[in-house]
Amino acid sequence: MEEIFISFLKDKVNLIENELDKAISEYKTSPLFPAISYSLKGGGKRIRPVLLLASYSSFKDDVEKALPVSVSIELIHTYSLIHDDLPAIDNADTRRGRASLHKVFGEDIAILAGDALLTLSFENLAKVTSFNEKIVLRCIRELSINIGINGMVGGQVMDVMTTPQDATEEVLYYIHSKKTGSLMKTAIKIGGILSEIDDEVLNKLESFGDKIGLTYQILDDIEDSKNSKEDESKVTFPKLFGMEKSKEIATNLLNESLSVIESVSLKNDLLKSFIYYLKSWIS
Amino acid sequence: MEEIFISFLKDKVNLIENELDKAISEYKTSPLFPAISYSLKGGGKRIRPVLLLASYSSFKDDVEKALPVSVSIELIHTYSLIHDDLPAIDNADTRRGRASLHKVFGEDIAILAGDALLTLSFENLAKVTSFNEKIVLRCIRELSINIGINGMVGGQVMDVMTTPQDATEEVLYYIHSKKTGSLMKTAIKIGGILSEIDDEVLNKLESFGDKIGLTYQILDDIEDSKNSKEDESKVTFPKLFGMEKSKEIATNLLNESLSVIESVSLKNDLLKSFIYYLKSWIS
Repeated sequence: MEEIFISFLKDKVNLIENELDKAISEYKTSPLFPAISYSLKGGGKRIRPVLLLASYSSFKDDVEKALPVSVSIELIHTYSLIHDDLPAIDNADTRRGRASLHKVFGEDIAILAGDALLTLSFENLAKVTSFNEKIVLRCIRELSINIGINGMVGGQVMDVMTTPQDATEEVLYYIHSKKTGSLMKTAIKIGGILSEIDDEVLNKLESFGDKIGLTYQILDDIEDSKNSKEDESKVTFPKLFGMEKSKEIATNLLNESLSVIESVSLKNDLLKSFIYYLKSWIS
Repeated sequence: MEEIFISFLKDKVNLIENELDKAISEYKTSPLFPAISYSLKGGGKRIRPVLLLASYSSFKDDVEKALPVSVSIELIHTYSLIHDDLPAIDNADTRRGRASLHKVFGEDIAILAGDALLTLSFENLAKVTSFNEKIVLRCIRELSINIGINGMVGGQVMDVMTTPQDATEEVLYYIHSKKTGSLMKTAIKIGGILSEIDDEVLNKLESFGDKIGLTYQILDDIEDSKNSKEDESKVTFPKLFGMEKSKEIATNLLNESLSVIESVSLKNDLLKSFIYYLKSWIS
């Protein structure tokens, strides 16, 4: 069952890479370009923009129309990684097996490159012409709310303010839902907004996105824990619940997300397949 | 002549403060709120949002309509100051006579508060309902382009990459135009976009904004130089040209901006008065 998503992912990655190139092409002569390019071309899986396309494809056929919008999601993801890696936050020297941006270009350039990509994400959205103004504006509203103070940034704030010693279950759920979950949920929800589905279906899509976003981060923590790549200063599901219980929580969330998505009428099994894709990580 | 602007400024500041409060009010329970509030309530002159309102008032009567939009300009200004002050960039311990944000709340919170305010600026714009979607989207496009890689962030990048020793006139003009000029120009231009003036007038408004934005920064440098508050690592107009020549450049720019604005048909002398307000700083 997971093959459907994997083949969609493989199929769409090149389109997204090309669209990312287009989004930054007019800035090629900027002294910031090498830093931006280094970060964007860091070998990300492009899961988030692909989820937006998968969500859109669950209701509509012309997936290329949604490509420019999906790029804005990846720009946000990249900015968040750059700022997360900074010495004052996670102090990560590496990212995806390469030196982190500030290690190569300096902290000042890393801060500014993050600011630039966050800004570019909105510029890119505001320039979309394949959807009407009302829809584009709704996407901007949705994105900005979910990556802001009560969304992704809020999760990161809670993360830096929390030590594993004083972390409660509630705080752990909050951090993971917001820090990672918010952007994945938004990607999926924006796919629905672009498809102009009604609010009832959109709410289900949001609930599905919430659950799989949280699961994605739990599975990432489990993976890091297995490979002894855990950051000691960070609170994680395996640290708080142990490995087996963490897997059980993830499995339950995936089962819940399956019932949600099975209650929606979709053109194909793409989103369902994503659930099985995540399930295959749990072993 | 400068009294017209000064009285408009005094008159509008409280409205802007209230609108800023409204823009952040739903985030009162966030752990980030104290940091955001500290920065926004730092006693700024609110020149940029007031310029947007002045520009709008030069064509239209219902200035309150433009208030929510003007707040987004101040949110961008505040985010840029927070990130500029960071140890990796300007390393400023104080801002407007108080400790800078990272000195009070830590570098991590300062980075995230800046990210949050940049994001909130777009959220706030995307929620504007007093103008139609087409106009709002055009404002988002205008703002994002001018504060991004070829705008404000670009100026800051050039600034951190330049030492006073290797600064040419061209580089100095670039830094000042982009770092400070871009946002002031945008504030003035957005006032015109909201007024739905035709493109010819809009271009003149943009040219006016370019000149007064650059002048504003030159005058700020002159002021700092007089008060021996100059940052030694920074390239400034007084350092490169000397005090008298810097004043001459500023005066010429103001005279140019005066001819531009006199060629536009306006409802009042607000923008003209702003030129005299700046002229009164040169002595």
